[in-house]
Formats: sequence, structure tokens, C-alpha cells
Amino acid sequence: MGKRKRYLSRRPTSKKSLNQAPGTVTYVGSKETVETKLDIIDYNTTSYERFTSDSIEDAFKFEEENNVTWFNIDGLNNTGAITKLGKYYELHPLIIEDIVNTNQRPKIDEYQDYFFIVAKMLYRNKEGTLENEHISIVLGKNYVLSFQEAGGDVFDGVRQRLAGAKGRIRSRGADYLAFALLDAIVDNYFIVLEEISDKIEDIEERLLSVEPNDDITFEIQELKKTMLRIRRAVFPLREVVSRLEKVDGGLIDEQTVHYIRDLYDHILQVSENIEVYREMSWGLMDMYMTTISHKMNEVMKVLTIMASIFIPLTFLAGIYGMNFKYMPELDWEYGYPTLLIIMLLLFIGMMIYFKRKHWL
Amino acid sequence: MGKRKRYLSRRPTSKKSLNQAPGTVTYVGSKETVETKLDIIDYNTTSYERFTSDSIEDAFKFEEENNVTWFNIDGLNNTGAITKLGKYYELHPLIIEDIVNTNQRPKIDEYQDYFFIVAKMLYRNKEGTLENEHISIVLGKNYVLSFQEAGGDVFDGVRQRLAGAKGRIRSRGADYLAFALLDAIVDNYFIVLEEISDKIEDIEERLLSVEPNDDITFEIQELKKTMLRIRRAVFPLREVVSRLEKVDGGLIDEQTVHYIRDLYDHILQVSENIEVYREMSWGLMDMYMTTISHKMNEVMKVLTIMASIFIPLTFLAGIYGMNFKYMPELDWEYGYPTLLIIMLLLFIGMMIYFKRKHWL
Amino acid sequence: MGKRKRYLSRRPTSKKSLNQAPGTVTYVGSKETVETKLDIIDYNTTSYERFTSDSIEDAFKFEEENNVTWFNIDGLNNTGAITKLGKYYELHPLIIEDIVNTNQRPKIDEYQDYFFIVAKMLYRNKEGTLENEHISIVLGKNYVLSFQEAGGDVFDGVRQRLAGAKGRIRSRGADYLAFALLDAIVDNYFIVLEEISDKIEDIEERLLSVEPNDDITFEIQELKKTMLRIRRAVFPLREVVSRLEKVDGGLIDEQTVHYIRDLYDHILQVSENIEVYREMSWGLMDMYMTTISHKMNEVMKVLTIMASIFIPLTFLAGIYGMNFKYMPELDWEYGYPTLLIIMLLLFIGMMIYFKRKHWL
Amino acid sequence: MGKRKRYLSRRPTSKKSLNQAPGTVTYVGSKETVETKLDIIDYNTTSYERFTSDSIEDAFKFEEENNVTWFNIDGLNNTGAITKLGKYYELHPLIIEDIVNTNQRPKIDEYQDYFFIVAKMLYRNKEGTLENEHISIVLGKNYVLSFQEAGGDVFDGVRQRLAGAKGRIRSRGADYLAFALLDAIVDNYFIVLEEISDKIEDIEERLLSVEPNDDITFEIQELKKTMLRIRRAVFPLREVVSRLEKVDGGLIDEQTVHYIRDLYDHILQVSENIEVYREMSWGLMDMYMTTISHKMNEVMKVLTIMASIFIPLTFLAGIYGMNFKYMPELDWEYGYPTLLIIMLLLFIGMMIYFKRKHWL
Amino acid sequence: MGKRKRYLSRRPTSKKSLNQAPGTVTYVGSKETVETKLDIIDYNTTSYERFTSDSIEDAFKFEEENNVTWFNIDGLNNTGAITKLGKYYELHPLIIEDIVNTNQRPKIDEYQDYFFIVAKMLYRNKEGTLENEHISIVLGKNYVLSFQEAGGDVFDGVRQRLAGAKGRIRSRGADYLAFALLDAIVDNYFIVLEEISDKIEDIEERLLSVEPNDDITFEIQELKKTMLRIRRAVFPLREVVSRLEKVDGGLIDEQTVHYIRDLYDHILQVSENIEVYREMSWGLMDMYMTTISHKMNEVMKVLTIMASIFIPLTFLAGIYGMNFKYMPELDWEYGYPTLLIIMLLLFIGMMIYFKRKHWL
Repeated sequence: MGKRKRYLSRRPTSKKSLNQAPGTVTYVGSKETVETKLDIIDYNTTSYERFTSDSIEDAFKFEEENNVTWFNIDGLNNTGAITKLGKYYELHPLIIEDIVNTNQRPKIDEYQDYFFIVAKMLYRNKEGTLENEHISIVLGKNYVLSFQEAGGDVFDGVRQRLAGAKGRIRSRGADYLAFALLDAIVDNYFIVLEEISDKIEDIEERLLSVEPNDDITFEIQELKKTMLRIRRAVFPLREVVSRLEKVDGGLIDEQTVHYIRDLYDHILQVSENIEVYREMSWGLMDMYMTTISHKMNEVMKVLTIMASIFIPLTFLAGIYGMNFKYMPELDWEYGYPTLLIIMLLLFIGMMIYFKRKHWL
Repeated sequence: MGKRKRYLSRRPTSKKSLNQAPGTVTYVGSKETVETKLDIIDYNTTSYERFTSDSIEDAFKFEEENNVTWFNIDGLNNTGAITKLGKYYELHPLIIEDIVNTNQRPKIDEYQDYFFIVAKMLYRNKEGTLENEHISIVLGKNYVLSFQEAGGDVFDGVRQRLAGAKGRIRSRGADYLAFALLDAIVDNYFIVLEEISDKIEDIEERLLSVEPNDDITFEIQELKKTMLRIRRAVFPLREVVSRLEKVDGGLIDEQTVHYIRDLYDHILQVSENIEVYREMSWGLMDMYMTTISHKMNEVMKVLTIMASIFIPLTFLAGIYGMNFKYMPELDWEYGYPTLLIIMLLLFIGMMIYFKRKHWL
Repeated sequence: MGKRKRYLSRRPTSKKSLNQAPGTVTYVGSKETVETKLDIIDYNTTSYERFTSDSIEDAFKFEEENNVTWFNIDGLNNTGAITKLGKYYELHPLIIEDIVNTNQRPKIDEYQDYFFIVAKMLYRNKEGTLENEHISIVLGKNYVLSFQEAGGDVFDGVRQRLAGAKGRIRSRGADYLAFALLDAIVDNYFIVLEEISDKIEDIEERLLSVEPNDDITFEIQELKKTMLRIRRAVFPLREVVSRLEKVDGGLIDEQTVHYIRDLYDHILQVSENIEVYREMSWGLMDMYMTTISHKMNEVMKVLTIMASIFIPLTFLAGIYGMNFKYMPELDWEYGYPTLLIIMLLLFIGMMIYFKRKHWL
Repeated sequence: MGKRKRYLSRRPTSKKSLNQAPGTVTYVGSKETVETKLDIIDYNTTSYERFTSDSIEDAFKFEEENNVTWFNIDGLNNTGAITKLGKYYELHPLIIEDIVNTNQRPKIDEYQDYFFIVAKMLYRNKEGTLENEHISIVLGKNYVLSFQEAGGDVFDGVRQRLAGAKGRIRSRGADYLAFALLDAIVDNYFIVLEEISDKIEDIEERLLSVEPNDDITFEIQELKKTMLRIRRAVFPLREVVSRLEKVDGGLIDEQTVHYIRDLYDHILQVSENIEVYREMSWGLMDMYMTTISHKMNEVMKVLTIMASIFIPLTFLAGIYGMNFKYMPELDWEYGYPTLLIIMLLLFIGMMIYFKRKHWL
Repeated sequence: MGKRKRYLSRRPTSKKSLNQAPGTVTYVGSKETVETKLDIIDYNTTSYERFTSDSIEDAFKFEEENNVTWFNIDGLNNTGAITKLGKYYELHPLIIEDIVNTNQRPKIDEYQDYFFIVAKMLYRNKEGTLENEHISIVLGKNYVLSFQEAGGDVFDGVRQRLAGAKGRIRSRGADYLAFALLDAIVDNYFIVLEEISDKIEDIEERLLSVEPNDDITFEIQELKKTMLRIRRAVFPLREVVSRLEKVDGGLIDEQTVHYIRDLYDHILQVSENIEVYREMSWGLMDMYMTTISHKMNEVMKVLTIMASIFIPLTFLAGIYGMNFKYMPELDWEYGYPTLLIIMLLLFIGMMIYFKRKHWL
């Protein structure tokens, strides 16, 4: 099932779950063993407090108006707790469904008091296969809720900046925090793209140097599939950030818009790179095809040269191996050396012919 | 004819029916033996009533204003009954034509008092070939008419939720019911897509492991055709739901719009998956092509190695099979073993040469 | 010239005619022998009158305000008569040029008092090649002028409905008549598309069953060209009908708009089918390519098996055909049967080897 | 350099000229030997006067308000004279630069008192290669300036119509004259397209009939390149004419707009044809590829049949050419004819086998 | 790393730097050894002064209102100095980040008092590989700041025109200077494109004349990659200049807009050329593929001819090399010459057969 997941998205596809009413909150991802954990960071320009808990109820204690509070929830398995949190913050039922529905594509939903953003994180797991992680962000007036499928370290940089009071992050509002989280996700894409760049170069070099084998076809096909998956994660995000930039209402500060525009530039760059790599992987297939054809050509030439040289010579030898009674040549004293010389001349002639044809 | 149907859509193509006036009500589908049946569900938040009949006239009894009434008609063969129902609900003649015209593409027509929606259901029949089922939905103020070509179980989930008072469905109006029906159809697409995903993986594996045979070409072509058909069913629906979301007038409740937007997201996801699978099936053809070329290369190498080694050796044997009177080598005592050793050296030399060329 | 015509459109390409002033009325089609004929149908809900003549002047007698009058002109050769008719109805000179310019692409020109519509009919001629027929329609307040290159039977269905008072056609105005004519043309496209569908299936089957021959390449190329021509006839018509639907002014009745929208749906369907068939014909070329490669692979395997088995055996036979004086094996009593057994073992070994490689 | 020119456009690419200030007037075309000549036609509905001169200063004498004056300048080498003319008519310096910059793409620049239009003429030169000619048109209130790189005969038709008072041209203003010039250019494209159509058919026929040779690849590549160049000349013109149609201000008469729309239709047709030919030339490459593959298949079959039949037979002959002392068959009386019959049967068996495989 | 750079853009991809806060000023390019230098040109119509310094602080002395001042900074390594300059001109922190972030794609950011433009210069380095140089331009009311990664000579033409008072440049404002800088960059693209044009022709010729070798595949792939990189540099610039043309506010003079439009035309031309070259490089791959196939065909023909002629002849010789006791032909007096004649006839027959098949 894990394997199939790669291509297919959204709802569980067993008939039972398909008959569920829309809005039903079911976790459909594959990380079912991840415990749901809560990590709260409450800060303003001067103060900073961090609080970790296994119980989602602990989130309800943070309500100070002047601070920005970031609730980060790792693990989407405990749908009950997430529903409770959602109700506390008066989130629409469809949002709670989307938080745990790991197949939801990147999108932004604008509600009266908050924005709901879905994004995808990409990383390699221990086996080296690329994995999607479903990330949801709710941006309210002075709070940010972020939901991760599994606890990763992608947001650690943001946490460090918050803790160390590095950069502008502590002096800005929740909107800047949400931007910082998205920025961290997009930065991560560049790592994945670099791996793809390496992979493409690796395949190119192998096409050049060693004997290409059948598996390269499948590696290229895998590469293409990986690219298709990345594209599916990144392209809708482009629109998400573009809408975030243009949004009205008080949630996004004028100053943050500059940063969001910058983020948009970065996503454009990721998108362009994806398109470039896609074209390059098409080129790889073409290269492989011509390489095979070229090698086949080489093989054929060797065969043709060998056969063209020795088949006529063998024929000549066959002639004088015949047992006719009256074959005058056989009795000539220099018949044998004469024939050898003729064969040598034929051989040399052939070699020159093939040389001229650039087959040698 | 059934086979041809697959590709061609809309009107019957015999010249007779083409000369018909527009608006003529003729059933053109292939499920002519399906009896036209009526299934009525009348409900509100508290009450629920279900009624089944073979006679369409039974539909005219349900007129209570405060309830939502869902008329589901299975089987489009009885055009007379459908026309009667259409007249009772004052539907435009073109709508009645479109209800029985199974070749009509997905669309939405907005009329004063009702919307007319055409969608396509996809399912595998008993023989395993993908079939289109034509589904029409009329959404009125407090009623929904749904027309199915053949009675299937796609709407059973909706019926169960209605009967069991599960989810929000009983507390909402006819618009939510229409949404729920479309949602059931779209959910169904994911099953079909998963089958395609399986098929693609299956072909990939077969390309890797066993000897590919000619039929894979045709399987891939079938796959492509299936995808083209799905696309034709799904892509216009995208626009349908998008217009449903933006529609003015009192038919669609503010609250239902959120759900329709969610449905739109799902259709986008289906569309994206279709595009991804299309690219992957193009990739399959490329893979097959390189696989064949690669195998041919292997075949050629075996031939070339065998021929290149033994043709020169045979020539040597031919030389000493000649019957010249004066061939001094023949009389040498160690002529024969010497030649055998020379042949062995030639053989070994060839093997090293081919090893170096990575042909062995 | 007839052959070249297929690809090229618009003006005659001889230098002489290219230097003509724009607006010059010259018939450039290939049906120069078709006599220009006039067929007039004058009707309203209650009355119906049909009148046929060879003289265009007869058209000027029909001027009753309350009736709809349909002038159908077959044969565009008599440019004088057409110009006369155009002047009588005060048509712009460019319209008259376009009526006889059979290379004009489908379009709609909106004038104050009338619309000018150009469409293309597609049909197979007696030799089985697809032909374009240029059709122009002028829609006025209570008259329709239709110009056909050659008299065909495509409008016969409309005439029958008019004569038989079948359908709504007699009770509607000239706008509905114009719609009915366009509808008849679009219906005709479905027949052509079905032929293409048949052709594609036919080629697919032949690719599977018999030995593919070189001609299939050309058949597929012909298919592609046919599709390109259909597309050129259909795609601009899409825009024509779309503009007809949105047009202001009193010429198009509110009620007719529904029918035009329906017609637009049909053209969309034709367009979609064309795109599907195009993709399928690209697929055909790929299939053919892999089929050839696959068959070549088969041929190569037979050659390789035969050569790999018999060349070494022949070498062995050659060894013992040598005439060395001292070849001890030759004198062994069981030398010959021993060698035969060795050869048999080699043969069997080879067979097993090729079996394992799935070449047999 | 002339060859490189084909692909590259705009500025001279030597570093020296690249460092020139924008607006510098340098002729960069390849027709440097063409003398700059002036041809003036001054006309109104009743009068017509033509005047030819080598000196551009002669242009300044024509200033009558009621006449339309057409200044046609052949040869762009004399940049001084052209600058002088430009200054007389108060043209913007960038316009004068664009007039002599033969690499400028087709465009329209709207100035207060005049429009500046750049178009490309296509024609075959004496060596048969397609050439671009840079044509600039300045349309003022009652004058038209047209600049040609080399004097061609493309505008001769317009001159004849002016001289002969044929068509509407004499009774219309300068706008109609400018339209007539563009119309003459567009008409010319159809000739080039017809040549391409002929070329495609020619290649198709050669692919069918004779042995295709390597050069066809290059001819198809040349064809594609030609198409790319035509497209580059035609596609921007589409936008030019479209803007000309929609332009405000008094320069374009209401009545001329109809003709410009007609011209736009023609350019659309050229564009469509180009796209069709491009697809067809892609198809040609595919056809060529399958044709080669098919022929290779034929070659391989001949080889395989010959080898498969004679290699086993030769082996048999080799067996009985061995010199074993004890080979009982050799002493049989009917050994030889028996073997011959066995060989014949083998031969016939092989033939039947290959017949069944459709290789014969 | 330098190699990887080619494909990947923007941020450094080591995890450490990815965790940096947005707005952090780090130089990520590869030209770290280039000293940061300052070159100031201060001019108006009458005066001209040039000043070079290693210290950025020298920039703060130039503040005369009536002059235009151009600060050109070479080398982005000294981020401290650049930050200082940025602060002096009150540039937004994101701008300073983008100035040193060499991976930033071309863009324009409009601020209240200045525009920020990023462009890419393309040039070949000493090793002949194409390099991107990151160039940033800040256009203020009466100053232009330009930042180059390494000091190149691309702006030398502008400096000469300024020094020599050539062209309009001295009499115009800072906006014209910014245009002149962009114009110099775009002019440079044409040189790169011409090299590509040369490369394409070179490959075409080599495909025709000599034996194509495997490396051509890689050269074509390199060509494609180069094109992808150029496209990434040029295409976003198109939008940049287009926005510059339409921008409101007092920074861009009415008169300069004409020149910007001209620049836009040039970028369109570069874009068109890139697309044309891309299509041509696809065509190259096809050509190479058919060329290989064609050559393979030639090889196969030689093999088939040689084998088909000599294998049957060898068989015949083998027959009469058999040692059967009773072979009457062996004892015929003219057996040997008869057989030789038969062989000759066979040979001639074969030759005629292959001639007819156009294999010779």
C-alpha cells in the first residue's frame, strides 16, 4: 500500500471509507505509529517561552493577546485531540478533515478570522525513497497552528531563530511566523532538487563511460516519476503563496508582503528548475536510446567485418577442398602459396575497404 | 457497435437519427434492457421515507414543501415516462433530450428554477472493460431528480447516510444532496485511478522481469485510451463544479459552497493524477522501446561473438582441408597439434577482446 | 491541383489572381461544372411553399414580412448571379467574395442587419477521399440565404422537417432555421469521426494480426492529415457558434439561444473527439514502431540461434576434414561416433542456453 | 555570413557595432549593393501621377493635401538619404533605425500622427533558398512611405490597380493603400506555403517509391527550419494586423476596417497552414524512421533466411567431408543421393517455416 | 560545486545556510576572490567626471541634485560594504540580500523611491563554458547603482558613450542610463545565441560528413542544457522590461519609454530565437537517430550481401568436398569447370537481385 500511495492521492480508496460522509475526520496517512505531540512557543519581542506536552488540552491555556503563540502538533493519528483543538479555535469541520487527510493537495482557504494553508514537505526516508509529508498551517490573528504528519527537523531553524532572537522574527507578528514556516518548507525543496541534479549528472556519466544496462531505463523512469511528484507538491503552492500575497484583511501585515513576494520568487525558481530537470530527463531517455543504437551499430560492424572477410576466404578454401578428379590447380607446384597470397590480398583489400567506410 | 461506442460520443450516427430535429427524445445508450425504475426518498431533519416503484407516475404524489425529495430514476429506456416526468417538473425539452442522450458530455445548464447537471460515472463491467455511465441531476428548490443509465450502487452510501441520519446530510437542503451525489461520483473516480496505477506498475514490472512480448504495446495503447476516456469524463466536470460554486440565486446555500469548493479540490486532484498517469504511460512506451532495443543488442552480441570466434577458425580448418599436392604443413609431424594450439590462442584472444568491450 | 488543394487554402495561388484587388469575386473551388441552382422555401407556422429555379432572379419575388424565407443556392460557379443576389440583399462586397472563395475559413461577420457565417461541410466523395464543401449562411431578419458549393443532401433533413411540420422548426423564426442548418452540418461531422474511429481500430487490428507492411506508415500519415483537415474545419466553427450565442441585437431570439448553446456543446464534443483521435493516431505510430522493432528482434533471434548452433559444429567438422598426415583421432575406431555425440551434446547445450534466455 | 543570417536576427553581432548607442542608423542587411531608389505615386480618384528618381530629395516636392502620395524606397543602403527623409516627415529616430535594421521583427508602433509597421516578405532567390526581405511602412494622414530592402515585384499588382483605376483603391485614402500593401505581402506567403506543400508531397512520394537515402533527413530538417523562419515572419504580423484593426484615432477609416479584418482572416489562415505543415513535417520524420526500420527488417530477413537455410546444410556437407577412417555412411552405395534428398527436404522445410512466418 | 551550480539556483544548499533567516546577507556565488571595487561616473549634459576607488565609503560624497550619478560596484564578496551602501540609500534589506544572492532570478521590484532590477549576463569563461553573471541595478531619481559579480567589459560601451558624449545618453536622466545598461546586457545575448547557431550548424555538418560518434549525443544534450540556462536568464527579463515600460510614477521619463519598448522588442527576438534553436536541437537528435539507423542499415546490407552470396557457394563447395565413395560428378572430366560456371552464374544472379533491391 505504501508503494501505491506514491501516485494516488486523497481519500482512502477502500469502498468502506469512500462511502463516508464528507467532513468525516479520518487519518489516511501511513505514519500511524507517530504519537500526537504538542509543542508550544509563546513569544513577543522581549519574552520567549517554550512548552512541550503530550496532551492537546494544554494548548487552551495560552491566550495572551499581546504575544504570538505557535502551536506545533506532530503526528496526526489522534484525530480526537485534533478535533478538540479545532473546535476550540472554531475551525470549520472541513479544515479538520483536511488536516488529517494527508492526500489533500496544497491549497489556501480564506476564512473570516483565519487562513488555512496546506503544503507538502519532501524528504528522503531512511530507505532513500522520497516521501511526502502533509503539513497544515492555520494562521490566526495572534496565533499559528501547524500540523505535521511526523515530527521532522524542518522547522528547527525557525525555532532557533525564535529562541535566539535572531533576525526579525521575534519583532513581527503571526503572519511573519507563518511566512517563516512556509519559507522553511520551500528551502527544503532545493535540497531535494539538488539530489535530482546529482542523479541526472550521475546517469549522464554512466551513459558515457560504462556499458549501459537495462536498469538505466528504469532509473530514468523513476526519476521522471519523482519529478512528477515534486511538481504535484510544488505547483499548487505557487498559487497558494500568490494568493497569500494579494489577500485583503488585517491578517497579513504590509511589511510581511515583501517577504511573501520573495518567497513567491523562490517557488517560481523551484518550479523553473523542475521544468528544466524534466526536459533534461527526457533528454536522458533520448541519449540512452541513441547510445544503445550506437553500440548496436558497433556490434554490427564487428560482425560484418569478420563475416565479410572470412566468409569469402572460407569459400576459396572450400573450393580447393573439393574432391574432383580433374582439378589442375591442385597439382601445380606453387598452387598452395599462390592461393595463400591471393587470400592475403583479398584480406588487405577488405581491410582498406572498411577503413575507407570508417568502420575500423 | 458496443466497441465503437467507446470512442465516439453524442448522437446515434445512423443517418436516420441524424436527420432528427434537435430536442427529439431518443435513448441512444447500450443498456436497452434495463427497466426504468423509480426510487423516491423524502426526508427532513426528523422524518425519512423511502418509496420504490416501477411507475413514474408515482413521483407526482410527493409535493410537501418542507421536505427534500430525491427522485432517482434507473434505466433510461422508457423515454415516454421520462418525458412525462420532465413535463411535470416543467423541464426544458433540451434537458429531457440530454437525460436520455448518453453521449452528452458533462455540463451544467442554469435555468430559472433549477440547475441541470450531467456527469459521467466510470466503472468496470463484468468483462473488466471500463464503462461510462451517463448520470443526469436536476437540482430544484426542494427536490433532486437523478437519472442513471443502469442501477448501480454508487449512490448507496448517500442512501445509507440519509437512512441512518449520519453526517450533516439530513439537516441540509436539496443543494447538499446534489453535492453529495456528485461527491459520490467523484469518489468513484479514485477507484478507477487506483486500478490504472496498479496497471502501470504491473506493466513496469513485466518490462523488467520477463521477456516482453508484442502485446505490451497493445496494453499500453489500451491504457492510453482508457486514460483519454477518463479525461473526457472528468475534465468537463471540473468546469461544472467550478460554475456550481460561483452560481448566484437561492438554489445553493452559502454553507454548501464550502463543500462544493472541497469537491472542486478533489476533481482537481483527479485531473492532476490523470495527467501524471498519462505522462507515465508515455514513459512506459519509451521504456518498452529501449527495452526491446536493449534486448536486440544482447541478441546481436551473442551472434557477433559466436560468428567472430568460429568463422576465422573454420577458415583455418578449411585451409588445411584443401587437397593441394604440395602443402608442406600437412606433412609436418606436429602440424596438427600446432594448429590446434594456434586456434586455441585465437579463441582466447577473441574472448579477451570481447571481455574488454564489455560484451561478455 | 485537386490533390494540392487539400492542404492549401484560400486564394488561387497563380500569380495572376494574387494580384487581384481584394473584394474581387472569383470562384476558386474545384466544382466548376456544378450549375448554380436556386431552391426557395417560404413558410410560417401554418403555410409552407417550395419553389425551385435555375434563375437567381426568381429570388426577388419573395418579400412577405410575416414569413420566413430560405434561399438555398447550389453551385457557386455563376458569380454574376450571386453578385446580383448579394446586391439585392445589400450584402457587403467582401461577403460576396467570401461566398465564392471556397478557401475562406469558418467565421462569423456581424453586420447591422444580418450575420454572415461560413462553415465547412465534410464528406467522402465517390473515390473515398474526404472533401471539404464550403457553405455560407446569411441570416437576416426574416430570411436565410445559404450557399453550397455542390448540391448535397445534408440539408434534406431540415427540408423534411419544414415540409412535414415536424418539430419546432415551423413555429420559430429565421434564427432557428440558421441554427438548424448549422446543426445539420455539425451532425455530419460525427459520421466522419466515426469513419476515423473505424479506421483507427482497423489499423490497430492489422498491427496485431498480420505482418505489418510499409504502407501502414502512409495510412497513419494519411489519417493524421485527415484529422488536421477536420480540425481546421471544426475548430474555428467553435468560436463562430460561441459568438452567435453571445450576440446582441434582435436577430437571435432568446429561446433559440438555448439551442445554440446545445449546438456549442456538440461542437465541443467533436473537438474533444478530434483531439482524442489525434493522440490515438500518434499512439498508432509508436505501436507500429515497437511492432517493427519487436519483429526485427524475432528475426534476429532466429538468425542468432541458427548461426550460434551450426557455426561451431561446422568448425568441428572442418577440423576433422583437414588433411594432416598425423591426426590420431582419425584413426580411432570410435572417433566418428564420439564426435557425433559431442556435437549432439553441444547442440543440446545450446538449445538449453537459448531456452533459458527465453529466445525459444 | 549569409548562411548564419538565416537563424539570427537583429543587430550586427560584431562587438564593435554592439557597443553602438541605441538609435544609431546602420544598415545590417546583406543587400548592400542595391542602390537606393525612390518611386513616387501621387493619386486621387481622378488624377494619377508616377515619378521615379535616384535622389531622395525629390520626395519633398509632393505635398498636396487632397491627394494620397505613396513613396516607395528600394534599397536601404543609403542611410543618409533615409535619415533625411525621416527628418522631413518628423519620424522618431528609433523608427529610422528600425527601417534599416533588417533584423527587426514584424511590429506596429503607434505614434501621434502616423503608424509605423514592419513586415517581412518571403521569396526564393535565384539559388532557390528562401529569403526574408525587410519591409517597413509608415502610414500618415495622406501619405504612405514604404521601404524595401531590394526592389521586388510584390507591390506591382498594387501599382497596376492604381494605374488602371481598377478596384476601389483610387477612391480610398492612404489607410486603404497601406492595407493593400500588407495584403500583397500576405498573398505572397501563400505562394511560399504552396511550395512547402509541394515539398512535403515530394518527400512523401520519395519515401514510398525509391530507396530512401540519408539526405532526406537533412531535407526534412531544412523543411522544418524553413517553417520556423516563416513562422517567425508571419506570427508577429498577426498581432500587428489585429492591433491595426482595433486602433483609435482618425488614421484608419471605418470602411477600411472591414478589409483589415479580412486581411486578419488571411493571416490566421497562413498561421493555421504553417502549424499544419509543421505537424506534417514531424510526421515525415516519423515516417522516415519507420521506413528505415522497415527496410532494415527486410534486409535482416533476407540474411536470416539465407543463413538459416545454408548454414545447417553446409554443416551436413562438412560432416561427410571429414576424414575419419571408419565412417560407414561414406561407403554406402546410395549415401550420396540419400544425403542430397535429406538436404532437399531440410531446404523445403525451412522454406515452409519462413513462409508461415510471413518472411517470404 | 561549480558544476552543480549550473542547474541549481538560489540559496546555498548546505543545511546550515538554509536555516538562516530570510534577509540574511550572504554572498553565495563562486567568484569569491574578486575584490569589491567602486566605479563612479557623475555627469550631466555638459560635465563628466569619473572616479574609481576600493572603498565603498567614497560613494557617499556624490550628492549633487542636477547630475546623474552611476555607481558601479564590481565584486560582491564584501557584503559589509554593500550593506553599508544599501543603508545609505535606504534600500530594503531584501534588496541587499538579493544583490549578493547570485541565484536570484531576473525580476523587478518597485519601491516608492527606486526600482530594483535583477538581470543575468551570459558569457563564456576562459574554459569555454557558459557562465551566468548576476547583475543588480537600482534606479533612483538621479542615480543608478549597478552591482556586478565580477568586473566585465559589458558596460564599457556605455562608459565610452558617456565619456565621448556620443548619442543621447548624456542629455537624458538616470532612467535612460538604466535602460542603456539593460540594453548592453541584452545585446550580449545575441553573441551567445550566435555561438549556439554556429554550434548547431557545426553538428549538422558533422552529422552529414564524417562518421558520427557517440559524443554527438552528449554535445546535443549539452546544447540543450545551455539553451535551458539561457532561457532561464532571458525569459523572466521579458516580464521585467514589460513592467518597466508600463510603470507609473516619475522615475521613467515619457521619452525613455520608447527606448524601453524597443528593448522589449529585442528581448522578444532573443526569446523567439531561443525557441527556434530549441526546436532545431530537438531536430538534431532526430537527425542523429535516423543517421545512426541509416548507417546501421548500410552495415546490415553489406553483411547480408556478403553472406547471401558466399554462404550458398561455400555450401556447394562443401558438397563436393565430401568423401562419399560413389559421387559420380567427381569423376566427370568437366565436373570442376562446370561447377565453377554454376557458381559464377549464382554469383551474378545474386548481384542482379541485390541491384534490383537497390542494395548496391
